Amino acid sequence: MLTVKLKDFAKEHKEMLENCLRASIERLNAPSIIKESMLYSLEAGGKRIRPLLLFATLHALGHDSKKGLNTAAAIEMIHTYSLIHDDLPSMDNDDFRRGKPTNHKVFGEAFAVLAGDALLTYSFQMISETPEEYAAADTKLNLIRELSKAAGAEGMVGGQAADIEGEGKQLDLSQLEYIHHHKTGKLLAYSVLAGAMLAGANDEQMKDLSQFAFHLGLAFQIRDDILDLEGQEELIGKPVGSDANNQKSTYPSLLSMEGAKEALTDHIGKAKAYLKSSSLSTSLLVEITELVAARDH
Amino acid sequence: MLTVKLKDFAKEHKEMLENCLRASIERLNAPSIIKESMLYSLEAGGKRIRPLLLFATLHALGHDSKKGLNTAAAIEMIHTYSLIHDDLPSMDNDDFRRGKPTNHKVFGEAFAVLAGDALLTYSFQMISETPEEYAAADTKLNLIRELSKAAGAEGMVGGQAADIEGEGKQLDLSQLEYIHHHKTGKLLAYSVLAGAMLAGANDEQMKDLSQFAFHLGLAFQIRDDILDLEGQEELIGKPVGSDANNQKSTYPSLLSMEGAKEALTDHIGKAKAYLKSSSLSTSLLVEITELVAARDH
Repeated sequence: MLTVKLKDFAKEHKEMLENCLRASIERLNAPSIIKESMLYSLEAGGKRIRPLLLFATLHALGHDSKKGLNTAAAIEMIHTYSLIHDDLPSMDNDDFRRGKPTNHKVFGEAFAVLAGDALLTYSFQMISETPEEYAAADTKLNLIRELSKAAGAEGMVGGQAADIEGEGKQLDLSQLEYIHHHKTGKLLAYSVLAGAMLAGANDEQMKDLSQFAFHLGLAFQIRDDILDLEGQEELIGKPVGSDANNQKSTYPSLLSMEGAKEALTDHIGKAKAYLKSSSLSTSLLVEITELVAARDH
Repeated sequence: MLTVKLKDFAKEHKEMLENCLRASIERLNAPSIIKESMLYSLEAGGKRIRPLLLFATLHALGHDSKKGLNTAAAIEMIHTYSLIHDDLPSMDNDDFRRGKPTNHKVFGEAFAVLAGDALLTYSFQMISETPEEYAAADTKLNLIRELSKAAGAEGMVGGQAADIEGEGKQLDLSQLEYIHHHKTGKLLAYSVLAGAMLAGANDEQMKDLSQFAFHLGLAFQIRDDILDLEGQEELIGKPVGSDANNQKSTYPSLLSMEGAKEALTDHIGKAKAYLKSSSLSTSLLVEITELVAARDH
């Protein structure tokens, strides 16, 4: 296999994904206000890191990206719905995201709730409609079941609930890791595992990839916490230090900034070690991991 | 087949469903606040008309109710999530439902949003986990895809969006029917069609049952509008005339009370005619239809 550079791979796949997302919303036979609200947030930018992880995992296992397009779109819909609902006044009450007004600031709270609900609902349809040539019925059902777990009460929603419960309280490290492993980690890990499922990876490969994804997810969140304190407002698109203002426990607040940076390095190292142990063509996944370690927004 | 009375059938199946719902929530490995919030609304009562429709359809086609248990639970989860989100201050802003405080009045808005999200997400997992002996993988995928359509932007969520858009406006009958067919009708119809899919009904049977479900759904909503004007507050659990206070267009406001009652009779008659045309053992479905025509809450 030719060595592919992440930059080219990302550009090509981002475009493929975004075309799919747009077409999927446009073909809905639904009131235009709800389609506009769904599309507004889907198109609000972002690095599309989850779909990219899925595509890069397929690549590592020597499988065509097309196999994963519907599932990648589903993941991005779930991620987007979670941002819309998290930004609501009753949740994090954020007016801006990635420098743009949040969904409820543009469409009002009712349509923001509904656009989130519609994206979440549509994500399962997307997977179920994966063309037969790309995934057998059993594989699609596994993808749906695992997405449910990663996104629902046992995953992302559970992490968000724990996060809200923990506000204003002093959390210990295991509580903080619970929150992040569920709120962010599970969907990131799912992105990798979905690629592995679609490619029919064996148990050994699954194990290495899932350990990789676990450490990548924690690294992602630690970097997020560090950025929140150190980052530049115009780059991350939200006020710097907003977690501290919200009295949220963060890795730097529990481990000190130096400790948080050590933990980041540690998780990045472990993530890469599992990739190496898998003996797959993981150059793209390695590059993504380095990007997570170094990202400035 | 022995003639089964709806009263006994409903009692037995309600219990089976409610046991399944409770066990499904209890086994979740999730923060207890989110499980409590999910269960609070799932157990807030109600006639369980949608699951009952599914079970009665299976019965009409001579199939065992167990086949439909996971899908019936999924439908009730979707229905319950929609009530939680509809009751939110940014939507209908209802403090009571079925005589009990609404979810956000008990758990706060954030957990109400999340409990709804978790129920919606879990519903797809429930279907995917239908035991293999009750449904083949292809059937489960069809059930998931059609549930997505019935509940999402092209179905229930789309209807709710149109309903919000129409508030304070004078709607015509076709707009009102669009709203109700989507907001209420699609999930009711899905309940019937899901039973038919699980039983492997043929095209002819599907057609009759889907026409039956369409008219039943509209009858259900017309009766709801009539009840809102005529019903007794303690029976329906919300203030009588609340639609009129919210300036919502209703069947009585568009057709007059007499016209609404005629339309109700008309749809009930058509629903029963399609049942008859199907030549299935529809005594239970007929009884449910009569219940919808005559219900006082």
